[in-house]
Formats: sequence, structure tokens, C-alpha cells
Amino acid sequence: MIIVLKAHSSAKEVRLVEKAVRELGYQPHTIHGEVRNVVAAVGDETSHKSLEILENLDCVERVIPIQKRYKLVSREAQPETTEVRVGPVTIGNGSFHVIAGPCSVESMEQMLSIAKAAKAAGATLLRGGIFKPRTSPYDFQGLGAEGLAILRAVKKSVNLPIVSEITRQTDLEIMVDVVDVLQIGARNAMNYSLLEAVAKSGKPVLLKRGLASTIEEWLLAAEYIAKNGNPNIILCERGIRTYEQATRNTLDISAVAIAKLECSLPVVVDPSHAAGRCDLIPALSKAAIAAGADGLMIEVHQHPEDALSDSAQQLTPPSFARLMKSLLPFIRAAGMKIGKVNK
Amino acid sequence: MIIVLKAHSSAKEVRLVEKAVRELGYQPHTIHGEVRNVVAAVGDETSHKSLEILENLDCVERVIPIQKRYKLVSREAQPETTEVRVGPVTIGNGSFHVIAGPCSVESMEQMLSIAKAAKAAGATLLRGGIFKPRTSPYDFQGLGAEGLAILRAVKKSVNLPIVSEITRQTDLEIMVDVVDVLQIGARNAMNYSLLEAVAKSGKPVLLKRGLASTIEEWLLAAEYIAKNGNPNIILCERGIRTYEQATRNTLDISAVAIAKLECSLPVVVDPSHAAGRCDLIPALSKAAIAAGADGLMIEVHQHPEDALSDSAQQLTPPSFARLMKSLLPFIRAAGMKIGKVNK
Amino acid sequence: MIIVLKAHSSAKEVRLVEKAVRELGYQPHTIHGEVRNVVAAVGDETSHKSLEILENLDCVERVIPIQKRYKLVSREAQPETTEVRVGPVTIGNGSFHVIAGPCSVESMEQMLSIAKAAKAAGATLLRGGIFKPRTSPYDFQGLGAEGLAILRAVKKSVNLPIVSEITRQTDLEIMVDVVDVLQIGARNAMNYSLLEAVAKSGKPVLLKRGLASTIEEWLLAAEYIAKNGNPNIILCERGIRTYEQATRNTLDISAVAIAKLECSLPVVVDPSHAAGRCDLIPALSKAAIAAGADGLMIEVHQHPEDALSDSAQQLTPPSFARLMKSLLPFIRAAGMKIGKVNK
Amino acid sequence: MIIVLKAHSSAKEVRLVEKAVRELGYQPHTIHGEVRNVVAAVGDETSHKSLEILENLDCVERVIPIQKRYKLVSREAQPETTEVRVGPVTIGNGSFHVIAGPCSVESMEQMLSIAKAAKAAGATLLRGGIFKPRTSPYDFQGLGAEGLAILRAVKKSVNLPIVSEITRQTDLEIMVDVVDVLQIGARNAMNYSLLEAVAKSGKPVLLKRGLASTIEEWLLAAEYIAKNGNPNIILCERGIRTYEQATRNTLDISAVAIAKLECSLPVVVDPSHAAGRCDLIPALSKAAIAAGADGLMIEVHQHPEDALSDSAQQLTPPSFARLMKSLLPFIRAAGMKIGKVNK
Repeated sequence: MIIVLKAHSSAKEVRLVEKAVRELGYQPHTIHGEVRNVVAAVGDETSHKSLEILENLDCVERVIPIQKRYKLVSREAQPETTEVRVGPVTIGNGSFHVIAGPCSVESMEQMLSIAKAAKAAGATLLRGGIFKPRTSPYDFQGLGAEGLAILRAVKKSVNLPIVSEITRQTDLEIMVDVVDVLQIGARNAMNYSLLEAVAKSGKPVLLKRGLASTIEEWLLAAEYIAKNGNPNIILCERGIRTYEQATRNTLDISAVAIAKLECSLPVVVDPSHAAGRCDLIPALSKAAIAAGADGLMIEVHQHPEDALSDSAQQLTPPSFARLMKSLLPFIRAAGMKIGKVNK
Repeated sequence: MIIVLKAHSSAKEVRLVEKAVRELGYQPHTIHGEVRNVVAAVGDETSHKSLEILENLDCVERVIPIQKRYKLVSREAQPETTEVRVGPVTIGNGSFHVIAGPCSVESMEQMLSIAKAAKAAGATLLRGGIFKPRTSPYDFQGLGAEGLAILRAVKKSVNLPIVSEITRQTDLEIMVDVVDVLQIGARNAMNYSLLEAVAKSGKPVLLKRGLASTIEEWLLAAEYIAKNGNPNIILCERGIRTYEQATRNTLDISAVAIAKLECSLPVVVDPSHAAGRCDLIPALSKAAIAAGADGLMIEVHQHPEDALSDSAQQLTPPSFARLMKSLLPFIRAAGMKIGKVNK
Repeated sequence: MIIVLKAHSSAKEVRLVEKAVRELGYQPHTIHGEVRNVVAAVGDETSHKSLEILENLDCVERVIPIQKRYKLVSREAQPETTEVRVGPVTIGNGSFHVIAGPCSVESMEQMLSIAKAAKAAGATLLRGGIFKPRTSPYDFQGLGAEGLAILRAVKKSVNLPIVSEITRQTDLEIMVDVVDVLQIGARNAMNYSLLEAVAKSGKPVLLKRGLASTIEEWLLAAEYIAKNGNPNIILCERGIRTYEQATRNTLDISAVAIAKLECSLPVVVDPSHAAGRCDLIPALSKAAIAAGADGLMIEVHQHPEDALSDSAQQLTPPSFARLMKSLLPFIRAAGMKIGKVNK
Repeated sequence: MIIVLKAHSSAKEVRLVEKAVRELGYQPHTIHGEVRNVVAAVGDETSHKSLEILENLDCVERVIPIQKRYKLVSREAQPETTEVRVGPVTIGNGSFHVIAGPCSVESMEQMLSIAKAAKAAGATLLRGGIFKPRTSPYDFQGLGAEGLAILRAVKKSVNLPIVSEITRQTDLEIMVDVVDVLQIGARNAMNYSLLEAVAKSGKPVLLKRGLASTIEEWLLAAEYIAKNGNPNIILCERGIRTYEQATRNTLDISAVAIAKLECSLPVVVDPSHAAGRCDLIPALSKAAIAAGADGLMIEVHQHPEDALSDSAQQLTPPSFARLMKSLLPFIRAAGMKIGKVNK
């Protein structure tokens, strides 16, 4: 770390900082500048004590960390992209996979019908929420355990792996019996107890970026999972919270590129939650492919009311099928091929 | 809700929207504008189905909610500020309380010494973390259950109630035995399972605003607790995440004023986490009082290294005592008096 | 507009609002809800007085605008994309153009050498700043008028049109003599006097989005130019200011898609300023194409120090040439072809 | 500056960086870390070339500036607060001044009536916009030069100095004849040409923070004015753009405290533009005083429609008078006294 002293610090103050640096297990190296003095502390920042406490000293202006804080999930540690195997599907091996399904599981009929259509259009994993973290306690919270029976039956019928969100440790036991990828949602992206519990289950984890997580915080959340023995992590960019209100969130396409550069984990993009409006999904899906993503997660559902479904512009099964077709030229341009289910 | 149709929508499209509104349980009232048509849906938005699904219709441009989504915690429901009783202390009754203590409990000696000094300076509640959610898995995660024994002994010794953060449901049983106010931290502000569990414990809850929660999301998180039978909630503004990096977070002083206007719960401010730098704590504390806060939560701790403690500008016990003294004129200007421990 | 009254407003208050709406030139239509009353004001919001003043009434909670505020640049007004002709180049006609060049013009030799290399690699317009708005008054502010002679000579030599930023009205006369596209930078995106002056010059304008402009504000800035008689506007997305610090700005790829949907103007993307780091430029450039952009603006410059230039990862002329080649499959996938200079 | 090299950089790469540092006019000091090497560059960052160009080197990960970039306006340069004299009023001398008046000058009668009421309530400066930068070209843009006659007459009548916004250099000549403080609005906070022109007029300048300016950018904008020979600058915090939509902007109360700590200029707060809603103005005004502000700028205007004015909660002259009275205890608590007009 680098400790920047205030302007015109005295020799005594410099010695004070050097002493403190030494006591915390680092070697101090002092550079006397024209206006400010700087003490560089040499030592492994991930194993030693943090030097940030030095900011409390009167004479210290800033403490600047130098090392990256994540290790296990970094490209420096593992140059090759991690291949995450989910039953008959492998993510991160250069093929491009699409996870599709409704926001919430509503009924056997709904889920089965969407699953078949999604599979026919090329999706290789299914999504469907049964435990839904909702901003208001008066909103629909998901079918809960009842939805698991539906997911189990649908999985057996269409033979695709299932991605579903977990919101509390106490549901882990019943979920791992059916669900193939445990999703950590944006609201629980810093719920470290849940991350540890999910890690220990050994199941692949789809880790969404928090509403306002930095890229570093997102990768450190992945590091929590990896450090607890589970390397099977899929990162999911789903937009961040900004001042712009034309979209529900702002898709941070640069984060996809940075995650691919700095981290060895596969990255998927969720354009549905990023945009919050269907008309942008094609453009954002193509941009995700172009930026280097390994896959997409897209909400597909039939409208609950017959009278409305015809005119809806949302990603009904037919519009999803059109989307999938339109993505192929971009998948090829990116040097990838569309993911398949292994036999 | 208000459903705004796209420009120049047809009579047929308007009828489609009206039908959908009726099927969702509302009465439609259509206004034919010069460019756009608008359908107002009359009905109780908190008990009926959400109309946002109508955004999926081709002819719909926007759906705008009109009602407030929180009920139990609103001033409309309860005009008087909720008085939250925590052992011998009452928050929300017009007296101004200060919660003080270290970020983390480190040892019996440390905690006891700070507690005595904080009490002597006028603090009426103690804080001390034993389960710490940390961004990096390599950072100190708190003493855990071991820290409870320290909190219990200190509480007995200085006779002040204890505020401490809970990060997972499985710690609830051991914590309620010692801790007087369960704190929900910013990272768990949308962990609704935890909010429900904490609500059901019956203990007073200090609910921090999430890193990037809107004021509405913060009040809806409180609504989760209230709806689960626990009205003893203290809101805590601790800064929000913005582009400005001169402070760790941006203290949203307007949120204090809005929470006091729209919600009946008492509000405290945490200037330590908002600023992330000690030199701003006096100014932010005074601003919090001026904006109408019912209290403050301030980090006080002695520096771990003797050689350093003298020169530190952080809120050591003496600087905390000076701060407390400097706040009195502002507490008086706000028409409040400093909170006391009831006999 | 929609005027939402506070909960349980009286009949008298409703009549007050209706009267006010009428006096401002609209027809009021009142809907009596279960909790709140709502008054819809029918009339053309872009030609009548604003109703926002009604928020001052005690009984009014919110006033919600319904109409879009931009007219001339909207797709509703003009379904076809505007073709902006810049000398021998046409932007917005389905071909994909790349504007390349150094951030600042430094010398004839530098500019000429980069211009030739950029043209050889496929760029069809040149950029080069001579008036540089810099955050610090101590930073290099550009060559000023002296740089114009360089731009003139280079333009004549390589026969490509020139894009350069204007920062004040008093430079307009000398700039229009040489520069083919006047660039409005992010810092002047709300300098409406400058927008009007530039509009009246008749020259094509490249309008960058402000540091923290909403999409609506960006399109309204374009409306200022269009309303002053100049339809030759190229929008430029260059990233917005967010809490994320891993990139200089956050490229808002959704804004590109929205601008293409709602506005008839061509859109280019500046990945250099968005990312602030060279390693992301290929990914962001490809994402821009995939999201529907009509072009890119990319900084290309040779390193000023010979000793350094070999190892630099920045977009030196050779790396720019490699980038251009790598974009071709994505341009084809998007159904576009690479832009040419007309004979 | 500090140059951080990538992990495991070679001795050759370190020498390359050292050479580059030397060529840019600094002395390199290299510290060999366990994972990363760091080169500290010693020299005055405000007079030498920027080292950020080194980020282009393959082997460089980051370049971190150490020195503050503003000099003339820093507390380090001038420990005492600058006293800005505006006719018979002095800002920055420990007295607390309130600038009041309408957003826009609408008529002689309106302005005169508000001015008298504002003066009677204790305001010592008047505000009133005649050149209004508006987001939409269809909104009212101010009376323009016609408004100057009104300002001149009102100033003569009530004998208070006038603050008014300037939006372009070409208006400078006519404005300086009447206006006592030239206001730079948030939208022009980075219009450096305008800052320079205003500086050279010698008139006191009220400099608003930009919509999304960092504190550093705001102080550097002030530095532009100071560097051009004009030290008479009043900073104005008016809220920043964040994700929170409950207020028009988020008042950054910490910025007031930081500006007071790091900069010698007086600071006023504009709660009207920060909140965008009248009900928050009392709380935000008191918070501003508590955080150390030297004054406030508050919008006061009578409602244009008689029928409406009685019930309005906005800062009509009577509500402004009540506000002023309610601020006195906080002004006293802050150790200040209410500002007066000198005889």
C-alpha cells in the first residue's frame, strides 16, 4: 500500500508512520516529495493486516491499496476460463448458452409450455423463480416449495437443467434436490452468509451483481464462494443503479469486458432486468455477445390473459424464437458457436 | 394507476386496455388527449394485482403508480412518531439519543473501556459488531459468538442497552439473549428473509438504508418488519452510493427530512459510515440534528497501537466527548433535549 | 399532464385544481380514486404553459408529464434516419463510419502521420482537438487557432473531413472555415447559447451526451439545434458518470438503442472516453455496433516518446488497424457495410 | 505521482518506466514489492507534465496522482476564509447571509414586491434570473435584456445587491452594469470560456457546482476564476445527480463541510434547487447552517395566480419570513450572526 502524508509533514511524523507500517507487518520505504511525503509499504496485502487504519493518523492524508483483493477467481491465478458443468451443459468452453424462462413459476401448465418453447428455440437451461425477493411485502412472493414440484416435473419432461434463485439458507436442502444452478439475486449479492452456504452445497452458482456493486465487490463475492470450496461460479451482469431512469438499470457492458479480462469465471448477461423493457432486449443481447459474454439469461413468458397475449411485444415464445435466430450472426462474429445439450 | 398509451392509439386499443384493467380488478376511466390517450385505473393498488404487466401491451407506453406502497409505517396511518423503547431508553419521544461504540468488538478490555467513556460523554446506547459482513473474505469477520460474552459483561457493567448487527437467521437465538437492538446492515437491507426473522423476534430493530436503496425501498423494508408484527423500528440513514469519491458514501440529508415527513418511525444518522473520514463527523452530526434526526450512531474506538493513539484524529473517547458537547447548542436549537437513561 | 392530489383531498380542493388547470389552458378531467383523486389535464404540453407550478398547491402531491418533450428529432416526426452529409461522407444511411485521430492536435507531423494511417485502416473522418476544455486550468488547453492551419493542411493532404470541438461562440468564424463537423463536448452539452450559435452556422454538429445527462436531456439538446434550423446532427454516446470507478465513465449501451428507437438522428459511440482505458476499446466498439450505432469515434495517436511507443497497448496506428479489421464481422452481422468516402 | 506496475513486472520494464518518468521531468524512486513494483515520481505535479500518459505502457497498471490540483483557492495557500464584498454586504466574515428572490424575473411589480418582502424578512441580497438555461427549447427562457431594467429599478428601490445568472460571454457587458454578483449555473459549471470571461470582469462570482461535478472539479472551476485574477468567488452547493428520485437532486451536505475544510472560499447552499420541493427547504436550510455554510440562496415568489396563492405551501413571502425566523437559533448555535447590510 501507499501512504500519502499531508503537505509538509515533519521528519518526526514520517518516522511515526514508518513505525506503524512496520508494526503491521510491512516494510516501509519512504519517498520525500517536493510537497508531500509518501511511504510505500511492501508486503502481501491479502495476508497482512490492513493499513487503512493509518488514515486515523493526523499526518496521513490517504492510504491507497495496490494489490487486487481477489485471488482465486483472478485470471492471474487461472489463465483459462473456468468451465462450469451443469448436467448436460458446459458453460465457459467457448459455446454460447441461453438461459430462458419466466420470472416466476406460476403453474405446471405455464412452466411446461414455456420450457418446451424455449428449448425448441435453442435455450439450453431453464429459469423460473419460486422464492422471489420483492421490494414490497404486498407483492407476490413466489409459489415457494410448491413450485419445486413443478420445476421437478418440467425438468424431467424437457430434460434441461434448472436455474432458480435461493433467498435463504433454510431452503437450501429442498432446493438442491431439484435445482441445478442456485442463483444469488442482486439483492443478496452481499449476503455473505448465504454465499457461504451456497458454496458449501457444491452446486453451480449463478451470481448476480448487486444493484450498486462495484466490479471489485462483485468479484469478491465470487471469491467468497471460491474460498469456500466451490469453483463452479457463473457471473451475471444485470445492470447497475444510476441516475438514468429510461431503463430500470443501466447495463454496464464494460463490466462484462472487465470481468472477462480480470477473472477466469464465465459471464452471462441478463438484459431483461437491465432494461426493464422488452424493446431493448435484442440490442442488449447482441451487445452482450459482442462484449465477450458466455451467455444470456432472458425472461420468456406467455401473458396471463388470453385477450392480451396476441398484441404483447414482450418476449413471448415466438418473439424469443425470433430473438434467438437474430443472435446467430453475432455469435459467429464473436468466434463462438451456439451451445448445445450434450448427449 | 395511470396507463399512458402510445401516441395516436386507436379506439380498439383503448378498449383493449380498458378490458385488461377491469380484469385485474380496477375501474378504468379514459381521458382522450390531443396526442395521447390515458386510462386511469381506480382501485386500491396495495390490495389489487399490479397493473405493470400492461406495459407489455404494444399500445401502452408507461404505467405510473399513484399510491404510496407502504402503509403501516406511513404518517398517514399513524401521525405520531413511534416511540421505540429499548430497556431504560426511549427513542422517538423528542429526546436526542447517541449510540456509540467500536465498529467491532475486539476484547473485553477494549469494549469496557470505550463503553465507560461513551457513557460518561452522554451516549445512552452502545454499539459493537461481532458478526461483520466484509466485502473481502480475507478481512476480519468479527469475534462471532465469542463476542457475545463480552457484550453481556459490558452491558451488565455499564448498564446501557446494546445495538449489534445480525447477518443471518441462525444467529438470532443466541443474539436476542444479549442484544437489545438488532441491527440490519446496509448490505442486508433487502434480505427480506432476515427482515422477517428479525421482526418475529419482537426485539427493536435498527434498519440501515441499503447502499443504493431509494427512500421508498428503505421504508418498504421497514414495512416488511411492521407487517410481520414488529413496530419497534429505528431507521438509520448512512449515506448512499454516488459518483462522488471524496466521501465513502454521500450522506443523504434530505432522506432524513423525507423519512420524518412521510413515515412515523424515528430516524438516526450514522455519520461515521457516511463520511468514512473523521474530520467530517462534527459537521455531519450537526446537520443531522438540524434536519430533524432523533439520534446519531457514532463509531468510537481507541487506537489499537499505543504509539499511534495520541495523535489520532479519529473519534477517540476524548474527541467523542468534545463532539457531544459541541452538539448541545444544535440539539437545543432543534427544540430537543439530550436523551437520558430512565431510572 | 396528470395531477395527483394528496390522500383524501376535499371536493373544494379538487375544484381548485380544476380551475387552475383551466386557467393554464388545459381541459381538466377528474378521476375520483379510492384513496387519491387525480386530475388529467388535456392539451398540448409542448405548446401550453407547464403545469408543474401546480406542485405548489397544498393539496397536490405530484404532477406527471405525459408527452415527450422533443418533437423535431423524434422518430414520430420523422420515421427515417436522418442522413448527415459531411463532404464526401454520409452518416446515417446504413453504412458504418469510423472517426479517428488524436485527442489533441500537437504538430503537423503528428497529425499528418496519424491521419494517413487512420485513412489507410479505413477511417473516413478525422478528429483532432485544438480547443480543449480541461478540468484543471494548469492542463494543456490545446494549440488553439494555431492548430487550425495544421488541420487545414492535413485535410487537404488526406482528403478526409475534419471533426473538431468548439468551446465558445467567438471561435465559430475561424472554425467553420476549416472544420467540417463541429463537436459539442460533454462539458458543453447544456451550454444552450453555444448550441444555438453552432446550429445557425449550418455546419453538421456532433453532439456528445453530457457527463450526467439523461437521454431525454441529450435529445432535447439536439432539439435546440434542430429548432434553430440545423437538422444535421450526429449524436455521440460517450459514457455517463456513475459510482463505478473501474472505467472513467460507464458506457450506456442502452442509450444507443433508445436513441435509435426514439430519435431519427444517427448515433456514434466514443469508446475511448467512455472507458478511459485502451484494453476495453475492442469490446466496447463491437458492442456499439451490435446495439445499432452508426459509427464510432476513436482516439488514435502515436506515443510522444520513441522509447515508449513500441510497448504501448494504446491505439497506435497498428493497433487501430487491427481493431478495424476485427470489427468487420460485427458490422456484417449488423447488416451494415463499412462506410466509404464518396468519389 | 505513483506508478503501479502490473504483477511480476521485469527489471527491464521497471527501467523503461523510470526512464519515462525522468523524461517527463520527475525523479523516479522505485519500490520493489512482493507482487507488484511501484515507481514514485517526485516533482511538482501542478507544474510538470502529467504522467497519466504512462498508463499506455503495457507494464503499467495504474497511475495515481498525489497532489491536490487546486492551489490558489486551497486552505493550504490561504488559511483565512476569503471575504467577498458585494456592495454593502460582506460574505465570508462569519456573518450568515441569505440571497432571496424569484427563479425568473417576470415583471417590475412581481420583482419589486418580492424584493421588499425578502428584505423585510432579513435577506441581504436579491436573486432573479433573466437569462435562463432551460432543458427544453420550448420552455420560458427568461426576459433577457428587458429584465435588466427591472433589476436596475428594483436594486435602486430596495438598495440590495443583485445576483443573476450569466449564460454567455456576449451578455457580459450589459450585465456588469447592473448585476453585482454574476452567477454561473450548474449547466455552465464546466464552461471554462465563460468562467474566464466572468473572471476578467472583476465582479464577484457565485459558482454553482455542476449537476454531477466532483468536489475536486468544482474547486478547479473556482481555480479557473482565481487564476484569471478574480479571487471574489462564492461557492454554491445545489445538490448532485444521483439515483434517488424523491428529490430533484441530492443535497451533498458533506461537500459543504469539505469545501470549508479544503478551500478558503465562502460557501452558500441552494436548498430550492437541491430538493425541488418546498416542504424540505426548512430542514435543508438548517442542515446547511449546521454543516458550516456561510449563507443560503432561496427561491421566493408569489404565485402568478391569485386564486392559488393563498393555499400554496411554496416559499411565498410569508413562508420565507417564517423560515428566516426559524433559522436564527441554528445560526446562533453555529456561532454566527445573521448578516447585515453595512451602512
